[in-house]
Amino acid sequence: MELYFSPLSCSMASRIALYDAGATAAFIEVDAATKRTAAGDDFRAINPLGLVPTLRTDAGELLTENAAILQYLARHLPAAQLAPVDGFALAQLQQWLCFIGTELHQAVFKALLSKTAPAEVKAYALAHSRARLEVLERHLADREFLLDRFSVADAYLVTVLTWTAATPIDLGDWPALRAYVTRLRARPSVARALAEEVPLYRREQAGAARR
Amino acid sequence: MELYFSPLSCSMASRIALYDAGATAAFIEVDAATKRTAAGDDFRAINPLGLVPTLRTDAGELLTENAAILQYLARHLPAAQLAPVDGFALAQLQQWLCFIGTELHQAVFKALLSKTAPAEVKAYALAHSRARLEVLERHLADREFLLDRFSVADAYLVTVLTWTAATPIDLGDWPALRAYVTRLRARPSVARALAEEVPLYRREQAGAARR
Repeated sequence: MELYFSPLSCSMASRIALYDAGATAAFIEVDAATKRTAAGDDFRAINPLGLVPTLRTDAGELLTENAAILQYLARHLPAAQLAPVDGFALAQLQQWLCFIGTELHQAVFKALLSKTAPAEVKAYALAHSRARLEVLERHLADREFLLDRFSVADAYLVTVLTWTAATPIDLGDWPALRAYVTRLRARPSVARALAEEVPLYRREQAGAARR
Repeated sequence: MELYFSPLSCSMASRIALYDAGATAAFIEVDAATKRTAAGDDFRAINPLGLVPTLRTDAGELLTENAAILQYLARHLPAAQLAPVDGFALAQLQQWLCFIGTELHQAVFKALLSKTAPAEVKAYALAHSRARLEVLERHLADREFLLDRFSVADAYLVTVLTWTAATPIDLGDWPALRAYVTRLRARPSVARALAEEVPLYRREQAGAARR
């Protein structure tokens, strides 16, 4: 299995899921700005939108989109119970994956983290953040995880909330979310993923600064 | 089963899926602007973000987020085969649901259709539309549906592409997409959903104009 990733991007959720299951993959780094792989290949020839994560399965099939890859990994590693397999719990997992992907990642963070988005676009995204974070704050006030146990939705959410450090969003305003992030970052799979990707991110940023 | 919907919004995909399965639900209309139900109730008491679709199952459980509700309906109505149940085809369904939800609906159409988004936000969304529509155009050039047969992902995509009429996006630039929309609108479930929701949408717009 090959996982195309960029350091600290939403592809980190797949790394967390793999590590949580005691598994791994061949990780292929894609420079977020140049869309070149570490070997110098043009990643857009593999994924025309240049989006990570992109997964190549052992059978050679290509899969894109974070929610699809995370659910694929959960099915591929069933012993780790990274996702409910049926019942209403499965519907709730899909609800949270969709909420994080559309309402948080795409509607709020993509613009806030963009190097090219105009100020009006960032302000519009920021204005929409409070109501969405409020939904999560209420949900996590008395829960350890989004569902009854750790799932790929938590791997995605802790990744997205880690990005707040690079935005005007202050997790201090959201005590349940801040406690959740602290708790999740102490989880070995999350701690290991961050310990590996932070240096790669810094190297990528230093490369961008030299160009 | 109760389905909270607003006419011609993304909740129409659930109506199409239900009709395609020969099923129905208690449809509860939510005014997109006032967030009041047809009975005058405050929809935000049910879904704090005021987002449709929202589903109440026969067991009384509330489910939000389009991709989650569409997959719930597919599992709830298995005879209709509205989604693959396993294998890589399931991963591909989830890939398309995620792509439509994040890259098309949220990143492009939400801003273009918004009555409050500033011009800069709309221009930014429009600038991102071509690469995303190009992905679909290439995929649908030699296919009838997104997967090998009709699925809830098609119910979602035809709904989203119907919105182009209210945006600067011209489906004439995308012959495979235009042919796909024409083909899907001839499908009885899609035709019936549109025939029912277009008049409801016009009534909603007339109400907004009077306020």
